[in-house]
Amino acid sequence: MKPSDFVRQDRLWDRLMSMAQLGATNKGGVNRQALTEEDGRARRLLADWAQARGFDVYQDAIGNLFVRRPGTDDNLPPVTTGSHLDTQPTGGRFDGVYGVLAGFEVLEALEDGGIQTPHPVEVVAWTNEEGARFAPTAMGSGVYVGKLPLQSALETVDVEGVTVADALSAVTAMTPEAEERPLRSPVAAYIEAHIEQGPVLVTAGETIGSVTSIQSQNCYQIEIYGEEAHAGTTPRVNRSDAVLAAVEAIAHLEETARDEADAMRFTVGRFIAQPGSPNTVPSHVTFTIDLRHPENAEIDRMAREIETVIPACAERRRCRAEVICTSAVPVTPFAENIVDMVDRARLDLGLPGRKMPSGAGHDAMYIAPMAPSGMIFVPCVAGISHNEAEDALPEDLAAGARVLADCLAELATG
Amino acid sequence: MKPSDFVRQDRLWDRLMSMAQLGATNKGGVNRQALTEEDGRARRLLADWAQARGFDVYQDAIGNLFVRRPGTDDNLPPVTTGSHLDTQPTGGRFDGVYGVLAGFEVLEALEDGGIQTPHPVEVVAWTNEEGARFAPTAMGSGVYVGKLPLQSALETVDVEGVTVADALSAVTAMTPEAEERPLRSPVAAYIEAHIEQGPVLVTAGETIGSVTSIQSQNCYQIEIYGEEAHAGTTPRVNRSDAVLAAVEAIAHLEETARDEADAMRFTVGRFIAQPGSPNTVPSHVTFTIDLRHPENAEIDRMAREIETVIPACAERRRCRAEVICTSAVPVTPFAENIVDMVDRARLDLGLPGRKMPSGAGHDAMYIAPMAPSGMIFVPCVAGISHNEAEDALPEDLAAGARVLADCLAELATG
Repeated sequence: MKPSDFVRQDRLWDRLMSMAQLGATNKGGVNRQALTEEDGRARRLLADWAQARGFDVYQDAIGNLFVRRPGTDDNLPPVTTGSHLDTQPTGGRFDGVYGVLAGFEVLEALEDGGIQTPHPVEVVAWTNEEGARFAPTAMGSGVYVGKLPLQSALETVDVEGVTVADALSAVTAMTPEAEERPLRSPVAAYIEAHIEQGPVLVTAGETIGSVTSIQSQNCYQIEIYGEEAHAGTTPRVNRSDAVLAAVEAIAHLEETARDEADAMRFTVGRFIAQPGSPNTVPSHVTFTIDLRHPENAEIDRMAREIETVIPACAERRRCRAEVICTSAVPVTPFAENIVDMVDRARLDLGLPGRKMPSGAGHDAMYIAPMAPSGMIFVPCVAGISHNEAEDALPEDLAAGARVLADCLAELATG
Repeated sequence: MKPSDFVRQDRLWDRLMSMAQLGATNKGGVNRQALTEEDGRARRLLADWAQARGFDVYQDAIGNLFVRRPGTDDNLPPVTTGSHLDTQPTGGRFDGVYGVLAGFEVLEALEDGGIQTPHPVEVVAWTNEEGARFAPTAMGSGVYVGKLPLQSALETVDVEGVTVADALSAVTAMTPEAEERPLRSPVAAYIEAHIEQGPVLVTAGETIGSVTSIQSQNCYQIEIYGEEAHAGTTPRVNRSDAVLAAVEAIAHLEETARDEADAMRFTVGRFIAQPGSPNTVPSHVTFTIDLRHPENAEIDRMAREIETVIPACAERRRCRAEVICTSAVPVTPFAENIVDMVDRARLDLGLPGRKMPSGAGHDAMYIAPMAPSGMIFVPCVAGISHNEAEDALPEDLAAGARVLADCLAELATG
C-alpha cells in the first residue's frame, strides 16, 4: 500500500470544519487574523491534535509552530510541509489552514500505515502569512529564512498600535509545551498544499496543479501628509488635502497599470483618512498598494511609476508623501524535481491536473531559495478566495493530501 | 454704564482655558466630540457655573442645554445666545465653546451690573454641531426647530455603532438638575458669537464681523459596494473594486467642482475602505462629501453631478453605489435689523469691523427662520480652524462678548 492509501477524507474534512469554528463569521467565513486570540486557539488545537498522536511541537522566535514525526535517522533535516492558520479579516475556511491540515493528515497517514522514513517529516504553521493585521505578508517564513529581520518584524504595529512582539507572546504562551526551535534550521525539502485561489483548475475541471513558480510581488505602504482645515472656509488654493492627493495618485497609477493582457495586479486594499471628520479637510492618508506580475521587468516598471507619481501628486497639492516598499519579492521558480514529482504523483493516482504558475504569494516563496520546494494546488469553488464565500470540495482536498503524502514519503525516504 | 462695561476679559479667558482642559490633546487642541464623556463633563462644568450664579438650567429631548437669566416679565420669550461645546476630533479651543462662554459672560455682566431686562436672556449649548461623530452637523439646533426629525436623530449611529439615544442618555444624566424644556419653545431673537474660522478679519486687521448670511451646504454619505477577491489571482476584468470606483468618482467630481473664483468648497473628509486588508480587493467604501457655495444654484449644479457621476463610476466597475444626502441647507440670510444692530454696537465701542458672509455653517442657520437672528465673528489666528493649532487673542474674544452684551441687552429690553 502507498502512503496516500492511508489518507482519510473524512478526518481531514472534520479537522478543517473544527478549525473553521475559530473566528467563524456570520457569513460562513473566518476572521482569524494573525496573533489574535483566535489564532492562538487554532495553534492550541493543532498542538492538542499533535499531542494525541504523540508528535512533539516546536516554536521559533517569530512563532512558527512545527509538528514533528521523527525519522529513523533523526539527525537528518526534516522534509517539511505546511502553510498558515491566520486568515484575512473576511477570509474563508480553506486558505492556509488547508495546507497545515493536509500536512497533518499526511503525518497521521504515515503513522496509521506504520510507514517509517529516514528523514523526519514536519508540518509547520507559519506565522502571519496574510499580512492583514501586521505587514508584510509571509512574515513568519520570511523571518525564518532570514529575508526579513526578526527585530523589525517584532516591532511592527497593527492599526491599534499593538506590536507583533506583544501579540506574539500572548499567543505563544498558549502552546507552552512547544520546544524552542532556532530560526533557519535546515529543511531537506518543502512542499506546500493550498487552494488555488483562482479560476484555472475549476474552469478546466482538474483536481491537482503542480506549481511551477510564484509571480513577482511588491507591497507598499504610502503615507500622505497634508494639513487640517475647515471645510467651509478654506479656499481650494490654501488646502493641503491628503485625500485628494491620494485619489489623484491612485487614479493615475491604476491607469498606468492597465495592460492588454490583464496580467498586472494592482490593488489598493487599505485606505485610511484622518481625522476622518466629514467637515474637516483631511490631513493624513495611509494607503497600501499590492502589485503583482509574472514578469520581474513589469513590476520594476510600475515600481518606478509608484515612486515618482505619488510624491509628484502630493507636492502638486501642497502635501508630503512617504512611499515605503514593505516587501519586494521577484518571481520565485520552484525546484524542477519537486514540480515533476508532484505532477507524476497525481498521474499515478489518476488525477487530472497540470503544471501551472501561482497568482498568489505563499510561504513557499521564501523557502524555495533555502531548500528544493514546490506546491500542490487544489481547486476552490468559482475560484473565489479572500472572501467569506470561499469554498472547496472534500474530495478535491483529500486528493491534494494524497499527492502530498506520496511526495513527502518519497522525499523523506530518498 | 453700558452692559459691555461689565464684561471681564480675564474671566472669559479663564473659563475658555478651563473648558479646553476637557478633551485636551497633546498638540494643544481639543478632542471633545459630541456626546462623549468629555462633552458630558463640559456640560456639567457649564451647569456648575450656572448654579454658582443662581441661574436655572434646562435640557430638551436632543440634549440642548439652556442657562436662563430671568427677565422682569418672565412670560416673554427669551433673547437667546450660544453655540456648541462639542469639537472636531482634532479641533481647537475656541470653535463653538467661545459662543457659549461669551454668552455666559454676558449673563454674568448683566448680573454684575444689576441690569434688569424685561425678556429673559438665555445661553444655549446646542448638541452636536460638528457632526464629526454623528451626522449631520447642527443636529441639536436642527431638531430644536423641527428641521431634523427627533427620532431619526436619536437613531443615528457613530462608526462604532453607538446610537445618539444611548450616548445622549449617558451625557444628560450628568446634569440631572436640568428641567425639561420642550423642543420648538419660542425665541424672541438669537445672536451667536463665533470665531471666524477663516482669514478675512485677521487679514484686514479687524475685530468684529457682523454676519449677513451663511453659504449653502449639502452633505452626502456615499456607500460603494463591490466584491472581495484575492489581490494576486483575480484579473482586473473580474474585479468589483470599491476603492477604485470611489477614487474615480472623487477624481471626476473634484475636477467638476474647480471654479475660477475658488468659491466652491468640495471636501471628502471621511473615506473608509473595508475589509481593509492590503491583499484583498476591497468590497466596501464609505465616504462623505461636504459641499458649500454662496449661491444655491451652484450647489444644485454640483448636487446633480454627484447623483449621476457616482452611480455611473460604480457601475462601470461592477459595483453598486448609494448616494445619501444627509443634509441640504440653502443660503441662510440673517435678519437685517440684527445685522445692523451688531454693526452699530461695534462702531459704538470703537471696534474695527465689517459686515460679511460666513463660509462655515453654524447653529444660527437653523434658528434664523424661527426668530430674528445674527452672528458676531471675531478673528482667529491665521484663519486656522478645525485644527489643533486653532488660536485667538483674549482681547478679540472679549471685544466680541462686549458687542454681544450690548446687543442682547437692547433686544431683551426692546
